[in-house]
Amino acid sequence: MTQIALLGFGVVGGGVAKVLTENQDIIKKRASEEISIKYILDLRDFPDSPFCDRIVHDYDTILSDPDIKIVAEMMGGSHPAYEYTKAALLAGKSVVTSNKECVAKFGQELLSIAAENGVRYMFEASVGGGIPIIRPMINDLSPNNIISIDGILNGTTNYILTKMTQDGSDFSEVLSDAQAKGYAERNPSADVEGLDAARKIVILTALATGIRLDSDAIYCEGITEIDPTAIALAESLDCKIKLIAHFEKIDGKLLSMVSPRLVPSDNPLYAVDDVFNGILVSTDMLGDVMFYGRGAGMLPTAGAVVADIIDIVTHKTVGEGIRALSWKIADGNEADFSSYRCDRAFTVRGDIEDVKKYFGEPSRYFIEDGKISFTVKNMSEAEADAAVRNVSLINKFRML
Amino acid sequence: MTQIALLGFGVVGGGVAKVLTENQDIIKKRASEEISIKYILDLRDFPDSPFCDRIVHDYDTILSDPDIKIVAEMMGGSHPAYEYTKAALLAGKSVVTSNKECVAKFGQELLSIAAENGVRYMFEASVGGGIPIIRPMINDLSPNNIISIDGILNGTTNYILTKMTQDGSDFSEVLSDAQAKGYAERNPSADVEGLDAARKIVILTALATGIRLDSDAIYCEGITEIDPTAIALAESLDCKIKLIAHFEKIDGKLLSMVSPRLVPSDNPLYAVDDVFNGILVSTDMLGDVMFYGRGAGMLPTAGAVVADIIDIVTHKTVGEGIRALSWKIADGNEADFSSYRCDRAFTVRGDIEDVKKYFGEPSRYFIEDGKISFTVKNMSEAEADAAVRNVSLINKFRML
Repeated sequence: MTQIALLGFGVVGGGVAKVLTENQDIIKKRASEEISIKYILDLRDFPDSPFCDRIVHDYDTILSDPDIKIVAEMMGGSHPAYEYTKAALLAGKSVVTSNKECVAKFGQELLSIAAENGVRYMFEASVGGGIPIIRPMINDLSPNNIISIDGILNGTTNYILTKMTQDGSDFSEVLSDAQAKGYAERNPSADVEGLDAARKIVILTALATGIRLDSDAIYCEGITEIDPTAIALAESLDCKIKLIAHFEKIDGKLLSMVSPRLVPSDNPLYAVDDVFNGILVSTDMLGDVMFYGRGAGMLPTAGAVVADIIDIVTHKTVGEGIRALSWKIADGNEADFSSYRCDRAFTVRGDIEDVKKYFGEPSRYFIEDGKISFTVKNMSEAEADAAVRNVSLINKFRML
Repeated sequence: MTQIALLGFGVVGGGVAKVLTENQDIIKKRASEEISIKYILDLRDFPDSPFCDRIVHDYDTILSDPDIKIVAEMMGGSHPAYEYTKAALLAGKSVVTSNKECVAKFGQELLSIAAENGVRYMFEASVGGGIPIIRPMINDLSPNNIISIDGILNGTTNYILTKMTQDGSDFSEVLSDAQAKGYAERNPSADVEGLDAARKIVILTALATGIRLDSDAIYCEGITEIDPTAIALAESLDCKIKLIAHFEKIDGKLLSMVSPRLVPSDNPLYAVDDVFNGILVSTDMLGDVMFYGRGAGMLPTAGAVVADIIDIVTHKTVGEGIRALSWKIADGNEADFSSYRCDRAFTVRGDIEDVKKYFGEPSRYFIEDGKISFTVKNMSEAEADAAVRNVSLINKFRML
């Protein structure tokens, strides 16, 4: 039997208890032994929970108990999650987490402490909720160079954009509806401004390259400015607007960013709607691989946490076999954002001769009510910034 | 350094040599050591290959060399692949394979021999080519009960159906074109009659349940009868025809089958076109998860073989930690196919009163040129078989 402790008994923590209880038979079979929750650390007491006898308020109870081999951290936020994780690893306990903020900020240090102490730090649930992506990137894509990643990594914004597209409603209207349904938090800024997706693409970039970028420093643009004219532009080009977290290398340097993009209908991410997430990884040997599923929610996220726990239980001999991940903090590895090139779409007021003069020959264009919508292939950030200064701009989008 | 032997230097074997050579730096980094091909077993000599000095014709050279820790079997077919695999496992060598026929037929025995000998038998490349599916099912989905699987598992038939849909061409016409392009084999029967997909769903079913069905005994219907009237029916219902390998449980018993189906546009498999594969796994905790990518081809399949090799190199301590898979041969676990229920679509000649009389109230119907196309919800095989006897049938399809 393996005894574990949960840090945090909120949505994800409660989900982990539920998965371990409801599926205990299959988990016991697959882990070849029972996995039992000995402690749950939370500030609250939960007198009505069947787990009330396991609630503790003092983290030292967990740290000092040698029976506890695995700690599942589901508190969220940087502090005290980081300090608690570090203390557990130093005490020789493996840690699994759903906390993308902690992984994106402190992953390199926590992975290194884990390796030094012969334990593991695992975070399948930190990106893509229930979608297997971290472990497949580590194991299944291991013979490949990762050429690029494009992910719909935030379910809240994907839900909002899907509803705006389907119903023609305004951003603020759909946001209120999403909050009422529990798909958006009361303070939705980390989601709608793209920071949540930025943390996740930083984690995926580190898995692809071994370099951990600063999620606060990468280019990050949210969806708060998307309006019905933008939705109409997307539709006229047979595209959908999606918040895309993107990674690629430019001359050997790393470019990771988050922004709304027009996704054409022949791209597999086009069909990823509502609260679903999709992650398209382009590799040199396996080609394009996409992972799709529920990017959030109690049971999907909890299921990913439990998969990590089972992985640790079934791979006991750390240090003798299992490859430890090693991430370095970026130090001059960041590509110059102004040189980033992609296809782009614009809507401007003006005439076609101005468009041709400042943007070059458009690959497609159409004129409606004195507005010109057009696309340009392979244009850099710097070129786009310079060109739009000469026109009366209504919308501009990167394309996928 | 880990030394390996390749069995077969055809498309996949050549691809494995290419992946190991071209990506040797990244593979060495991720495996923490070099992986080197010591022998390649083939009947031919390949005097112009850079690997010509490693070609051997006698399998005993490989079997008797204690330096060889891993054998990659890429010969295809049951014999001598099965005998060679068994001999390698008994000699204490791990085996990785792309050979779905061998895994589907002899998987339970070969996994058991591997476990007894403290080595591994791995087959990521046997299903979905370059798509990570085997390892994610074993590891990432481990806390889940698998409720159902729906897979587009055969690239050849998906290419043919995509072209028939896009161009309105006949099956035989598109098949010739696919053969000319190398997407279909000269003898395409295993693909177009569904046997290839049947072997793959048998493997996925065994991963989900631990029970290995007989791929020759499951219901298997190919795409040779699909004609333009069927494509038209699909389009009129906002569906595409896909060859779907399906698994579910009926009253605790296993139902695995292969047949063409109408896939509605809101299903994520709808967008899986051309030679791509997609596998939608429905689970009780993670929800629906889909894996998408290149289901065949030299480099994708070879990449999956190399991922297995790296997995073995980085998890050396078999028996102490890694959970051995254990499959049993089905013995009364097969569900009664006639009780299988799903939504269905039909086109018949006749009048709507007959349709209502024999099929019940259709959920949708439309009449054109004296033909009635209609859908019925949740109808069993037995009910469908009985109903169609009373009408002049043009087309019938299961829906997803």
